[in-house]
Amino acid sequence: MHAPLPRLLATLFALMLLAAQPARALNVKVHTFTLDNGMQVVVIPDHRAPVVTHMVWYRVGAADEPAGKTGLTHYLEHLLFKGTKKIKPGEFSKIVKRHGGNDNAFTSRDYTAYFQRIAKEHLPLVMELEADRIANLQLSEKDVKTELEVIKEERRMRTENDPRALFSERLYAALFTAHPYRRPVVGWMADVEHLTLADVMAHYRRFYTPANAIVVVAGDVTPEEVKKLAEKYYAPLKNTAPKTIRWRTPEPPPLTERRLTMRDPRVRQPTFQRLYVAPAYRTAKGKEAHALDVLAEALGGGTTSVLYRKLVVQEQVAAFAGAFYSGNDRDYGTFGIYAVPAPGTSPEKLEARIDATLREVLANGINEKRLTRTKNAMIASAIYALDSQFALARIFGSALTADSTIDSVLQWDERIATVSGEDMLAAARKVLKPANSVSGWLLPAPRKTASAAQATPAKAMPAARAPAKATSGEERKQ
Amino acid sequence: MHAPLPRLLATLFALMLLAAQPARALNVKVHTFTLDNGMQVVVIPDHRAPVVTHMVWYRVGAADEPAGKTGLTHYLEHLLFKGTKKIKPGEFSKIVKRHGGNDNAFTSRDYTAYFQRIAKEHLPLVMELEADRIANLQLSEKDVKTELEVIKEERRMRTENDPRALFSERLYAALFTAHPYRRPVVGWMADVEHLTLADVMAHYRRFYTPANAIVVVAGDVTPEEVKKLAEKYYAPLKNTAPKTIRWRTPEPPPLTERRLTMRDPRVRQPTFQRLYVAPAYRTAKGKEAHALDVLAEALGGGTTSVLYRKLVVQEQVAAFAGAFYSGNDRDYGTFGIYAVPAPGTSPEKLEARIDATLREVLANGINEKRLTRTKNAMIASAIYALDSQFALARIFGSALTADSTIDSVLQWDERIATVSGEDMLAAARKVLKPANSVSGWLLPAPRKTASAAQATPAKAMPAARAPAKATSGEERKQ
Repeated sequence: MHAPLPRLLATLFALMLLAAQPARALNVKVHTFTLDNGMQVVVIPDHRAPVVTHMVWYRVGAADEPAGKTGLTHYLEHLLFKGTKKIKPGEFSKIVKRHGGNDNAFTSRDYTAYFQRIAKEHLPLVMELEADRIANLQLSEKDVKTELEVIKEERRMRTENDPRALFSERLYAALFTAHPYRRPVVGWMADVEHLTLADVMAHYRRFYTPANAIVVVAGDVTPEEVKKLAEKYYAPLKNTAPKTIRWRTPEPPPLTERRLTMRDPRVRQPTFQRLYVAPAYRTAKGKEAHALDVLAEALGGGTTSVLYRKLVVQEQVAAFAGAFYSGNDRDYGTFGIYAVPAPGTSPEKLEARIDATLREVLANGINEKRLTRTKNAMIASAIYALDSQFALARIFGSALTADSTIDSVLQWDERIATVSGEDMLAAARKVLKPANSVSGWLLPAPRKTASAAQATPAKAMPAARAPAKATSGEERKQ
Repeated sequence: MHAPLPRLLATLFALMLLAAQPARALNVKVHTFTLDNGMQVVVIPDHRAPVVTHMVWYRVGAADEPAGKTGLTHYLEHLLFKGTKKIKPGEFSKIVKRHGGNDNAFTSRDYTAYFQRIAKEHLPLVMELEADRIANLQLSEKDVKTELEVIKEERRMRTENDPRALFSERLYAALFTAHPYRRPVVGWMADVEHLTLADVMAHYRRFYTPANAIVVVAGDVTPEEVKKLAEKYYAPLKNTAPKTIRWRTPEPPPLTERRLTMRDPRVRQPTFQRLYVAPAYRTAKGKEAHALDVLAEALGGGTTSVLYRKLVVQEQVAAFAGAFYSGNDRDYGTFGIYAVPAPGTSPEKLEARIDATLREVLANGINEKRLTRTKNAMIASAIYALDSQFALARIFGSALTADSTIDSVLQWDERIATVSGEDMLAAARKVLKPANSVSGWLLPAPRKTASAAQATPAKAMPAARAPAKATSGEERKQ
């Protein structure tokens, strides 16, 4: 992010994206049209207050970066807040603020997005500003040097200084064998340090072009008004690059069960995390992704979930346990399980009990009552989460830049409602296989270091003392 | 390779590269000069027979490929045997053969090389041919389509059909977290299937340019003769691309101990392999790489080595055990340990005994007598291996395309001779750390498949029945 949203807010959005897709119950109306230059415009009328959320989304994320240039997309996002021919460096956000609005940006594996929230009468202003920086970015050597220090510091703060973030980074690098989702969005530090003005401008020209952009306007507007403005500000923009084919190395067949152990002196207690490569909403067959979403919620969505009740409440081998499914990325989803051992429980024992619980669920399924309760809760929570103009705009922008569709978002609740116990079991049996997975333990560093031969986790590790918050699958997003 | 050398021969060369660097004792004289267009020429006179070995090396290997285009370098190598304006598709090798010579090519992580062995009077002919295909490659859609099927079949034959090759591929993918040495030289199948004529030509124009090439001529020639010919055939070539900066994402700090288990019904008995990221000859400090080379040989270079005597002969827990160091790549080396359990020994027990042996070596070192014997044997074996014109030409070509120097090759034996027990221990303690490593077990598939919850290797695996040949670190080379 440019000027990072408070972490809590970011986490909230991340959780919303994980758990929530808009429900028909919301009665959301989404309008869309495409300008002659190929730019898609999406309008979501929301007349509760005289404000608009204006977003420009580009179909370029960290997974689209050239070899050896990790972090380039995120770096470019920062640099869009420098100047153009008309706007001085740093002026963009000041102009928005002066008109009572606020703005920011974010980068993921699949997209880069810029947004402003502002009174409806200033929509023309922010459109003019965005149209200007799609075409006219001007960067000096000084701009890129200064900003490089900012993103290096961002990486230090959020990743190097946080063993859980480092652990998560390495887990994803081990989960994906060949696909670029294995690379961190913020980039590997050594790559980031070597990014140049030439790299940035090549990336900008290739991807920041109208046919590769999607404008989303949610708020107190009609589709007709937005169309008129889009024709005025965005239609005149010319494409600077041919339409990009988004080729990313697909995963080779899953052949190996992987395992990873990280020891860090800053860690107080062991944390377990297992990730499975899963289908994404876009790539799943039938209701597979919906079924995995429901399964994750039933299995580990809170203190009433199967894993929590079994491992924390009944067996008391875990201080914390949960599961998640992340299916909104373009090419692959992730199914995750995490846990913290209870005091006196060894990592091996906890992991064995997790596996036993999974085996039981795979053998017997989830009971009908719990299934219905879970689905209802998910739909209700989606409706609640999307009672926000920003969340509404974001859900459609992220779906479209991940090459999904508006309909797939709009039909989410209906399809969730029809997920059966059988659907869930079929998806679980397909995905929860050892060869799809990496299992990781983040452990306190052993007292004596530099022992050269291998040591197994079991022997080198003190027992856990207190619960720790597990990392979520979305923390990697910048 | 274009028309693959018999596997045995290929393995022999690989072993030579692993174990051997030319010794002063050989009294090799190496001459070098650079043409005005930046092409370097290396001449190694060898007057034992009236023949020459002519090689053209390009500083481009699999580690230089763009994102999503793995296998492109190897594909291009194959396509160089199609035609030019003057030479019809497939004619190149026929002309060489008609003049009593033979030719081929090979691709590694760091380079692509083409060679001809031919009577000395035909050196002008092969130079003319190579100069032509540096500049004038002509490919039709039909050429690239036909050859794509050839390299897909090559991958199927050598990799997909061989569980050990698949296992080795995944081990390297797990060993390197970010550096492109994690990618197979032949490419991931899904990438290979999507390579296009446009990809190939862009790669060709970028890297097949005189300033990025090194010509090596070994044989019955004088430097003066070669210079005259090089001025005639190679000096007129124009550069088609600016000099390339070889930026490859370096490895992030080693933080995690990794582990990988692969089960395959074609596997008869378990195999263990552990790899450590190590310095390469080019990147090592002082005598570090030489020390690792000697350590690998003493530890696991044959049936008299420490690992073999301890695990196979004395403790009888292994049917086979060994170690290797591979230090000739440009950016990183690899230190490897491999073993096959003896009948009745569990993988866990064998691995524990390997670790115990390593701990002992790290604590007590290798005795002086063994050290001296090992170094002498290595130097003798290098001298023996390089009693071959082809090996001589190859060693200098590979060193130079990996951005190393002629001197570093020439000083190898002197430096090996001075490696002390202390040097070895210091290098071992630096490299043989869990966080530098991946440990892998290749196991027979369990009788019942599709068990969804995780199973540990120990429980699912029958005991070994007979020794198997362990995979070597060079088998990945195409």
